[in-house]
Amino acid sequence: MNEYEVIKKIFSPLSSNNLSLNLDDDAAVLPDKKKIVVGTDSIVEGDHFQKNEKNPSLIAKKLLRANLSDLASMCAEPFGYTLNLSLPNKLKEKKLNRWIKLFAKGLKEDQLKYKLALIGGDTVVTSGPLILSITLFGYKKKKLIKRSNAKLSDDIYVTGNIGDSGVGYKILLKKLSLNKKLNNFYIRKHKLPDPPVEFSKELGRYINSATDISDGLLADLNNIILSSNCGAEINIEKIPFSKQTKELLNLNKINTNYLITCGEDYQLIFTANKKNSKKIISLARKHLLKITKIGSILKKKKLIVLDQNNKELSFKSLGFKHF
Amino acid sequence: MNEYEVIKKIFSPLSSNNLSLNLDDDAAVLPDKKKIVVGTDSIVEGDHFQKNEKNPSLIAKKLLRANLSDLASMCAEPFGYTLNLSLPNKLKEKKLNRWIKLFAKGLKEDQLKYKLALIGGDTVVTSGPLILSITLFGYKKKKLIKRSNAKLSDDIYVTGNIGDSGVGYKILLKKLSLNKKLNNFYIRKHKLPDPPVEFSKELGRYINSATDISDGLLADLNNIILSSNCGAEINIEKIPFSKQTKELLNLNKINTNYLITCGEDYQLIFTANKKNSKKIISLARKHLLKITKIGSILKKKKLIVLDQNNKELSFKSLGFKHF
Repeated sequence: MNEYEVIKKIFSPLSSNNLSLNLDDDAAVLPDKKKIVVGTDSIVEGDHFQKNEKNPSLIAKKLLRANLSDLASMCAEPFGYTLNLSLPNKLKEKKLNRWIKLFAKGLKEDQLKYKLALIGGDTVVTSGPLILSITLFGYKKKKLIKRSNAKLSDDIYVTGNIGDSGVGYKILLKKLSLNKKLNNFYIRKHKLPDPPVEFSKELGRYINSATDISDGLLADLNNIILSSNCGAEINIEKIPFSKQTKELLNLNKINTNYLITCGEDYQLIFTANKKNSKKIISLARKHLLKITKIGSILKKKKLIVLDQNNKELSFKSLGFKHF
Repeated sequence: MNEYEVIKKIFSPLSSNNLSLNLDDDAAVLPDKKKIVVGTDSIVEGDHFQKNEKNPSLIAKKLLRANLSDLASMCAEPFGYTLNLSLPNKLKEKKLNRWIKLFAKGLKEDQLKYKLALIGGDTVVTSGPLILSITLFGYKKKKLIKRSNAKLSDDIYVTGNIGDSGVGYKILLKKLSLNKKLNNFYIRKHKLPDPPVEFSKELGRYINSATDISDGLLADLNNIILSSNCGAEINIEKIPFSKQTKELLNLNKINTNYLITCGEDYQLIFTANKKNSKKIISLARKHLLKITKIGSILKKKKLIVLDQNNKELSFKSLGFKHF
């Protein structure tokens, strides 16, 4: 397949005709009924996903979901995306065609799951590793949620569990090995994040600030307090871990420090006035989503992490640095 | 500089505060007064721009201008962009900082020239070559111009000159060498395209279809007729070349075939009803822009290229194939 055939056969069926103009033009048109929120993310083979990943569908889904996580943190409603593919020139045509088909299969499945359409893109070849970027568009809900709006005494919540993705990453790097079932559990958590997209669409009215946990719980909470000009106190005992991870902690196979700094959880961390607590918990229940209060916003501009004895812990690094 | 510093010091000053939320959040918000058009393009070191380019400002400008060319072909009015940088991990910090600063300088200059703002982005590192993607946003003008709307008997126009960029590319590849002044002239044409952005904002009302010449004059005209379900006849004698290129043709240093298939001209090719001819020519004059009628749209679904004796020429390849 040449580029024309790839677009016609593979990507056009993924596109929304009225927005993308069938991918037949140099640009696409966005809908104009509501204000639009836009986020963008890139992922690199061997860094954000495994080298020679056998299942390109998973790469497609991770790419989409990392971006969906960004829009979820602003409580927007995603509807479409543009895609930039940098494909390795060393891939032979047969292998490339197979890769593109499976990649598009993953896009299609997640488009259905999250109600998205492809609206444009560009493809280039590189002598380096595979690089993929998505620019994701969503409708702004009534209230735009930002990092910078945390208020004094706000409760701090996180969705889901923290650190499972990071444990999966360690297993992929062969820095940790568990039994087959556990290895698979964690690797899946790493490869297939599950950002709380539906929950977030309804969450905006109850909260003051939010971000998604991509760089690590501490780093992303730190982003909130830096932007909001305040501090936070969280209790390490309250941080939600899966039962599998609690077991690893008990066996000293992993430490808490790693779990709260490893990143790529793609869960939300958000702050809300205490008076909205019941409504938030009830919304989470409606979406069958685990949420946990882990601390509160302080005036003092500092990130305080307390251990089980209310003693302050110190950290060399708060989380993942990009470069 | 780490990523946080790069964003705060280098990219925040390029951003539009009200759209980008100071680049402080996970996503940006687009204005909602008009319908928005979106296009995206990626460029790769060693392919779309020279390996180890000494002036990263030029890379920034080529990236922006290739995208501006896409939006110009839809006669939209560009206002902002998101940026995805994949930076080589082999670059040492000092060199990287210098690169980013000069790159941002180029962005800033073209932001002023074209009235654009940075509204978001993402940065990753790669073991391969530098890859850059831009997603560019523009306001849709009253009439959306598409490739697929060429009408029977339409005049076919191109802006500027054809092939100068391709000659520059040959010189960079050391497949052609001229005197220093000419080498510089052509290399500049290749590195710094000059899409007719201002002209295109006013052109929409007079034309039926358009695209930009990125893959080559013949290939892009062929895209118009394929999408519009018609044919075209152009005369090779009418294709506009710079006086420098005419001289090269006379000296047999280059051939016409190459010039009309080499691509990356980032000029417009558009079709319009004959009755609008005067208005189009007068608009071009207002913008001090060269435009040339090179042929017309036919019913018969074929791309016919006539030589100086009205004999039909045949072509092995119409232009650049992406993969």
